[in-house]
Amino acid sequence: MGVDNYFRRQACRKLACESLFPNPELDERVKVWEKVSGRKINYYVGDVKNYPFLLRVFKEFQPEVVIHYAEQPSAPYSMINRDTAAVTLVNNLISTLNVTYAVKEAELLDCHIIKLGTMGEYGTPNIDIEEGWLDIEYRGRKDRFLFPRQASSLYHTTKIHDTDLLWFYVRIWGLRVTDLMQGPVYGIFTQECQLDKALRPHFNYDEIFGTVLNRFIVQAVAGYPLTIYGKGNQKRGFINLLDTLQCVYFSAMKPANPGELRIFNQITEVFSINELAEKVQRLGNNLRYQVKIKYVKNPRVEKEDHYYNPKFTGLLELGLEPHLLSDGVIEDMLKEVYDLRKFIRKDAIFKGISWR
Amino acid sequence: MGVDNYFRRQACRKLACESLFPNPELDERVKVWEKVSGRKINYYVGDVKNYPFLLRVFKEFQPEVVIHYAEQPSAPYSMINRDTAAVTLVNNLISTLNVTYAVKEAELLDCHIIKLGTMGEYGTPNIDIEEGWLDIEYRGRKDRFLFPRQASSLYHTTKIHDTDLLWFYVRIWGLRVTDLMQGPVYGIFTQECQLDKALRPHFNYDEIFGTVLNRFIVQAVAGYPLTIYGKGNQKRGFINLLDTLQCVYFSAMKPANPGELRIFNQITEVFSINELAEKVQRLGNNLRYQVKIKYVKNPRVEKEDHYYNPKFTGLLELGLEPHLLSDGVIEDMLKEVYDLRKFIRKDAIFKGISWR
Repeated sequence: MGVDNYFRRQACRKLACESLFPNPELDERVKVWEKVSGRKINYYVGDVKNYPFLLRVFKEFQPEVVIHYAEQPSAPYSMINRDTAAVTLVNNLISTLNVTYAVKEAELLDCHIIKLGTMGEYGTPNIDIEEGWLDIEYRGRKDRFLFPRQASSLYHTTKIHDTDLLWFYVRIWGLRVTDLMQGPVYGIFTQECQLDKALRPHFNYDEIFGTVLNRFIVQAVAGYPLTIYGKGNQKRGFINLLDTLQCVYFSAMKPANPGELRIFNQITEVFSINELAEKVQRLGNNLRYQVKIKYVKNPRVEKEDHYYNPKFTGLLELGLEPHLLSDGVIEDMLKEVYDLRKFIRKDAIFKGISWR
Repeated sequence: MGVDNYFRRQACRKLACESLFPNPELDERVKVWEKVSGRKINYYVGDVKNYPFLLRVFKEFQPEVVIHYAEQPSAPYSMINRDTAAVTLVNNLISTLNVTYAVKEAELLDCHIIKLGTMGEYGTPNIDIEEGWLDIEYRGRKDRFLFPRQASSLYHTTKIHDTDLLWFYVRIWGLRVTDLMQGPVYGIFTQECQLDKALRPHFNYDEIFGTVLNRFIVQAVAGYPLTIYGKGNQKRGFINLLDTLQCVYFSAMKPANPGELRIFNQITEVFSINELAEKVQRLGNNLRYQVKIKYVKNPRVEKEDHYYNPKFTGLLELGLEPHLLSDGVIEDMLKEVYDLRKFIRKDAIFKGISWR
């Protein structure tokens, strides 16, 4: 059972930054999926913010697990102006509130909620980043808290909000929740999209909805200098698209306990932005793309030199088998995007949405 | 300059839990104030959630300080159902977002935002509660974070959200913000209301909008047993209404620095609920009210035995001269409520809104 309000497609259309290749609508995608897999997915085009709608869906379908992907997912989008900030706040908080209430009011307290968080909730603290929780000893007394969070965009701040919101309802209602602190995702391919191109996920390469490595790949192919924000020493934890799906799968197969907010850091490797740019440049040049790098004034407000040591063992213990960022992975992405190069719109690549 | 959307009056009317005595509308209150003080306050009846309205007010009036009291302030209200939870989330977050954006877009970055937070953001941790911030040393490295927060209602959780929201915009835009972590307020009187009864603040004695000591006072006068939730060992920091106004005054007189989120714990004493009930019972019995105490099943989910050691020196250093909870203060409240006893509606006192 799927629910989609087409928010991202519509926002991309409005902001002229659509996916590299066109994607069919949900009705066609489920038909294709049924043809190649023999399995039928029911779906609604509807909005998770609409509580009566969501409650009806929950009562009818009686889910054992909910994968809550219904959030406005872009940091730059949330920083365009007051209205996109408000859309982000209301969408992300009300969708999360509605999912928790629907689980409660449909009497599905055993239903496992898997929620997409972000590594950006932690920011770049000067201490090691644990998986969600921190034992603090202070003046001879001890307690365990959510890891202190400090995000660097309004969007990331709404994800902090969500974590607090879920933690509250977990404590009072005994919900089962897994919150996946995902790092920037890269990749074009999933196992399913090898079966039919209509099953490919969106692939954004613009500054609003595109993540950094995907952007660099398209920029390399397009002869557009790789845009590094500020010094490029910013470090983040990254994950292959294939692995994000594994993480959700393994989380669903081994649910959180009742009354547990289980938090995993969903990354497999840490790189600086410079390291990613150098990889793409080197491998792009091997393919004769003549890749340039351009350092641009950082449109964001973030530390450009910082300590970064996040832990990420929980999902490995659950069974995740990482697809690491090998040269081959980057080469495959470069080649795929090269085949799709007629779709690249250079004007979508960089607009410089400023945090200030 | 004042802005009011009459939310609380309307909510109290709808939920049949209005203020003990009727309060005139804003237009009459400002007329009375002008008569007794010679000072004119302009005001709008309007909603801070309406951004174009708020921005216009800010551009016209060019405030040097904004006192942001525009939040849905009741924990039980936020726990009635999905809709009151959603109203609380959207009202509190969008009003705070709008105030920050209006300051930015009206080019008033020097304007000092004073925001009402709550001690409830901290919950009841097993370590000392500092004023807003905590220096954490972990595995040989150090950083300073917002004090870890864990609230015990949806309303209190939205106040955590606000603190995170303000802290984000303080960092990127250099706003000046003071966040006042207020404990439960008690009291009927302000200096201004001695000049004319039309200037009295609302006085709620119901479980939704009434705070615990005010409720106990009315229950004592009404011959209604003092309703203690659970064991009554819950400790909180309390403050006299007179002192809350001092705290706002002193905060305004000495603003936060640009780029500073200054946090004060706005309380003057710590009591357990049992201690408050015993005081009201003893002093009520002296006045021959025959005060009974009734332990009711706790409708909330909260620790009933816990460590509680909050710091609260910042506002004292700024100049706050506390009015502590003496027997005389309680006796004056009991007498005032006795004079107003004809207004008490017993059915408004307790309805048992459950957290579960």
